[in-house]
Amino acid sequence: MAADPLSSLVEELARLPGIGPKTARRLAHHLLRVDRARAEALAKAVIDVKDRMIHCSTCHQITAVDPCSICSDPERDQSKLCVVEEPFNIEPIERTGEFQGIYHALLGSLSPQRGVGPDELTVASLLDRLDGVEEAILAMNPNVEGEATALYLAGLLGKRGVRVTRLAFGLPVGGDIDYADQVTLARSLAGRRSL
Amino acid sequence: MAADPLSSLVEELARLPGIGPKTARRLAHHLLRVDRARAEALAKAVIDVKDRMIHCSTCHQITAVDPCSICSDPERDQSKLCVVEEPFNIEPIERTGEFQGIYHALLGSLSPQRGVGPDELTVASLLDRLDGVEEAILAMNPNVEGEATALYLAGLLGKRGVRVTRLAFGLPVGGDIDYADQVTLARSLAGRRSL
Repeated sequence: MAADPLSSLVEELARLPGIGPKTARRLAHHLLRVDRARAEALAKAVIDVKDRMIHCSTCHQITAVDPCSICSDPERDQSKLCVVEEPFNIEPIERTGEFQGIYHALLGSLSPQRGVGPDELTVASLLDRLDGVEEAILAMNPNVEGEATALYLAGLLGKRGVRVTRLAFGLPVGGDIDYADQVTLARSLAGRRSL
Repeated sequence: MAADPLSSLVEELARLPGIGPKTARRLAHHLLRVDRARAEALAKAVIDVKDRMIHCSTCHQITAVDPCSICSDPERDQSKLCVVEEPFNIEPIERTGEFQGIYHALLGSLSPQRGVGPDELTVASLLDRLDGVEEAILAMNPNVEGEATALYLAGLLGKRGVRVTRLAFGLPVGGDIDYADQVTLARSLAGRRSL
């Protein structure tokens, strides 16, 4: 006999990142109670995303059309290229409304431990699209792997005559100095600006 | 044109309780990357739970077979009835391994504000199954609505000659007195036991 459907759902939900067994159980019980149409919409959305989303062949972000809406937008500034680790890093930057350039998703970060070198990332495709790019903004995550990746790319891109910049480190806005960790605080001090 | 599949999935996931837009986006991107079989298993589990899970006609817990495995287990002590608010409150109690009796799920708690009275809960069905029950353990949530529900049931069940008990309040095991809120600490003091 198959496992009961509720346990199966809890199990599937608990496979999602950041969803522990307790949350999985709560979500499963919620889904038990919602309209069937709502549950069907979720199930369909899960399948659709597998069937219909692809990587943009230019910037590697996730898209339903290729090239993606950013790459095909003539209004975007082709001279400013923001390099991110993952496609989902693009949306938060877009939402700031401060960046009008284009993007490139590496699809990961360099990690000797996990066996991820430049060939596992979209580095070659990045180097192929530098024509007209004046500034590359490295928007890697502020962690060891992100730093290593940024350093590696800075070397490569600098050699191609591209100006390389990096997102600033510092205190989170609305944060409290008391709660900032030492590394962030040190970075924030080192990056201090005159008023 | 329909919204793109990724946005639809983020939207559906964000409807789940406790899942904010950021988490929904992270989960959606995770689902983008998993095997199709894994995504299908999740989608199927969501639908199955709607199609195949029902309420036990005796205790109202969620089950694939009626009566549920606890109600139909001859080894369970029929004289001890643990009353919970929701079906999902049963599993945590079962996992303690300390309770061998039977359960009754009210399917909610009394709430005048939300218009939930005894008729909206399974109170009548609870009163119908008191034959042979010696002790009713009220395992409502430790909040205002749970307290009100417990008080109401204590009155009803007491009149039927059932011994009524309540889960103990106190410090969480492994917790720290410094971090306990005042109400919990007060309850913990009031419920102190001699060693």
